[in-house]
Amino acid sequence: MMLAMAPKPSASKPNIVLFFIDDLGYGDLSVTGALGYKTPNLDKLAAEGTRFTNFMAAQAVCSASRAALLTGCYPNRVGVSGAFGPQAAQGLHPQEETIAELVKEQGYTTGIFGKWHLGSDQEFLPLQQGFDEYYGVPYSHDMWPLHPWQERAKYPPLHWIDGNKAGKEIKNLEDVSELTPNITEKAVGFIKRNKNKPFFLYVPHPLPHVPLAASSKFKGKSERGIFGDVLMELDWSVGEILKELKAQGLDKNTLVIFTSDNGPWLNYGDHAGSSGGFREGKGTSFEGGQREPTIMRWTGVIPAGRVSNKLLSTIDILPTIAKLTGAKLPKQKIDGIEFVDLLKGDDSKTPREEFLYYYRKNSLEAVRKHDWKLIFAHPGRTYEGQAPGKDGQPGPTSEDFQHPRALYNLARDPGERYNVLEQNPEIVAELEKIAEAAREDLGDDLQKKEGKNRRPVGVTSSK
Amino acid sequence: MMLAMAPKPSASKPNIVLFFIDDLGYGDLSVTGALGYKTPNLDKLAAEGTRFTNFMAAQAVCSASRAALLTGCYPNRVGVSGAFGPQAAQGLHPQEETIAELVKEQGYTTGIFGKWHLGSDQEFLPLQQGFDEYYGVPYSHDMWPLHPWQERAKYPPLHWIDGNKAGKEIKNLEDVSELTPNITEKAVGFIKRNKNKPFFLYVPHPLPHVPLAASSKFKGKSERGIFGDVLMELDWSVGEILKELKAQGLDKNTLVIFTSDNGPWLNYGDHAGSSGGFREGKGTSFEGGQREPTIMRWTGVIPAGRVSNKLLSTIDILPTIAKLTGAKLPKQKIDGIEFVDLLKGDDSKTPREEFLYYYRKNSLEAVRKHDWKLIFAHPGRTYEGQAPGKDGQPGPTSEDFQHPRALYNLARDPGERYNVLEQNPEIVAELEKIAEAAREDLGDDLQKKEGKNRRPVGVTSSK
Repeated sequence: MMLAMAPKPSASKPNIVLFFIDDLGYGDLSVTGALGYKTPNLDKLAAEGTRFTNFMAAQAVCSASRAALLTGCYPNRVGVSGAFGPQAAQGLHPQEETIAELVKEQGYTTGIFGKWHLGSDQEFLPLQQGFDEYYGVPYSHDMWPLHPWQERAKYPPLHWIDGNKAGKEIKNLEDVSELTPNITEKAVGFIKRNKNKPFFLYVPHPLPHVPLAASSKFKGKSERGIFGDVLMELDWSVGEILKELKAQGLDKNTLVIFTSDNGPWLNYGDHAGSSGGFREGKGTSFEGGQREPTIMRWTGVIPAGRVSNKLLSTIDILPTIAKLTGAKLPKQKIDGIEFVDLLKGDDSKTPREEFLYYYRKNSLEAVRKHDWKLIFAHPGRTYEGQAPGKDGQPGPTSEDFQHPRALYNLARDPGERYNVLEQNPEIVAELEKIAEAAREDLGDDLQKKEGKNRRPVGVTSSK
Repeated sequence: MMLAMAPKPSASKPNIVLFFIDDLGYGDLSVTGALGYKTPNLDKLAAEGTRFTNFMAAQAVCSASRAALLTGCYPNRVGVSGAFGPQAAQGLHPQEETIAELVKEQGYTTGIFGKWHLGSDQEFLPLQQGFDEYYGVPYSHDMWPLHPWQERAKYPPLHWIDGNKAGKEIKNLEDVSELTPNITEKAVGFIKRNKNKPFFLYVPHPLPHVPLAASSKFKGKSERGIFGDVLMELDWSVGEILKELKAQGLDKNTLVIFTSDNGPWLNYGDHAGSSGGFREGKGTSFEGGQREPTIMRWTGVIPAGRVSNKLLSTIDILPTIAKLTGAKLPKQKIDGIEFVDLLKGDDSKTPREEFLYYYRKNSLEAVRKHDWKLIFAHPGRTYEGQAPGKDGQPGPTSEDFQHPRALYNLARDPGERYNVLEQNPEIVAELEKIAEAAREDLGDDLQKKEGKNRRPVGVTSSK
């Protein structure tokens, strides 16, 4: 009844709900092998839509990954690297066009409920980047006075942000346990208020990034400790938001996208997720850092119960949304490739042939073509051989381990365990060409190359 | 129409179709992350039934794994280890009761179409172990004069077996390419002929064990070379058999089980499957050797589109089938645990708390409780650091690598990369207790213990 009664946006202007989960590993959903707890709402979403098994975050760290998602660019193209600190005098450059800005021009109402982390000075906040509403946290919620390395980091108090204004302080784990329910409530309210016009709802949940806390409804409910409890609550949150779409008769005309910013922060041990067998995790260009559990649903448009194993990345979401909504692409160059046909079930297309694994400021650590991945010798993080942390305390991480040059075939060897560099000189030569073109375009700190087409990060005008 | 017209066995006597695929890795289906080809029929089967993400083959090698599946016992309990050679004077002991024998007493017609590998002397062949019909190969189809190590193995000619009689010789890859289509045709014919009475159809496909060959319909069709082509054909085969069930109106009253005997034979490189990020493969007690992609469907009884992450093993299939069909359990002790409630969707049950990883003749290489796995120091195979083979030629394998004692938490670390032995002495003590009990019961060559309750392998009376 509801379905027939509610006025709906036209099919050419689907609503968009984009979940972007923090530090969620590839193996953290039941459908991707999680043990010790279940994610029934996400499993159902996968059954009703398409699950992507070869979907890459653009970089394995928070701000960079978010900049890429919202601009459709490799993060180094838009000058963003790593994770902005609370007092950073930087943010995503205001001239960069975000998904929110593009769809706003198409008449969409836009809201973000969750973590921003693209600059915490007012000029960089979401309301200045195309969002009509913002409620959430400005950066990672471990950037607070209780950080385990506070003596080193000296983080200021962390506050909820409502629009452009700081709200209640998040002072302890009790307050952290309110993140998921509060964000859920705001997202549900946004749907209720905007049911009669097309909307873009961005839900970048701050959890399961550490520090972890679950509300009383979920605490102690999993067989995987607090991490499992938090995942159960996030799954509940997705379920609540999908339920509201249904209640408003909008579930059929809404494109739902679910993915993660980067892999698990493994040195947090029992407080970290799982990369599902992929190598390494957050902060590395191995698959464990960037392969993300990804689901998209748009009933009647995206085939149900399908799995797609084509190479794609978060940077491809912007041009795909643009094509689906009729929005114009940004004026400046982007790196994303639209995959609308693939999304609709056409497997004959391979929109993305190549992918660049940049990390640190501007280091080209690896390149990929189809299933082949060439890793360049680089210093980087490793979790292997390190004792993981426990009970919310991090273990040590080797940040400058020397990773050797290596070639992996990800079809046969998704775990990047078997280096086949010597056996495949022609493949290496082909991948080297891709790398050379990338270095010309975007530069490479490993080779001290600048790159022609990088744009500057935003710098605070007030400082 | 067909559905209403066909006489069906009563709901208490479902038909059973059991696919047991050879050397199929955990990552070899689209739903478990395969790249370069798709398995649409198996993906659909998963969507219509329950997929198991924590399901263990009982041992990571052919004959042992098959003995376990059919008897519900750890293979060392029934005296089977490794893979029987063509001229072995041994087979599964005739006094062991197989699934086929149990359901036959309940009025089931039983057929096996595919690979047996539980003894090739007539007294050990399927017709002497409860099967009414047999058409297939007696052992692995690389045990033939074209084996790459023929000078070492000296294998006799390989023949199709029809009932108890040798048929056409399998002489070359052209003949190998007939394995999947011929077995499919026989399985489909069996369904047609037995549509009016309950049946147990066992389909142990010999591929994608090497040597690989695909029929002309599939050759060159994947983006993953011959391995992908073979997988596409196996997926087709499953589709054909399911289609026949549907055509006969039997699809709703049939329990379909799909799993594999062990992980991929990784030193065959581009002719091997993928363990999907799990460590090692066939011939090892790491997860890559024994974690299998598993799907079960029984429409209306098993929930659709569900994922189960409870620990289970192939040895649990026999008691589960027994309970579902009303069959008596074998007279001798078995190791399997029935999981009917879990199968029907009840997640509150944890039928299996522990699992024993025996390998070689009788070596207890690891034990598991829930997500914790303790690995004992043992000599064993490793593929890591070895150059993989190419084009059907195997690469070298280290068979006596010294694996050190280690503790892994498979929920956080499915790839068995982070040894947390030192941090968890209480867990180690608990797992040691399980190991001690196993050694009393089944022995342990690593500790030179015999074990009280092992039964003998069958020995040929004629030799």
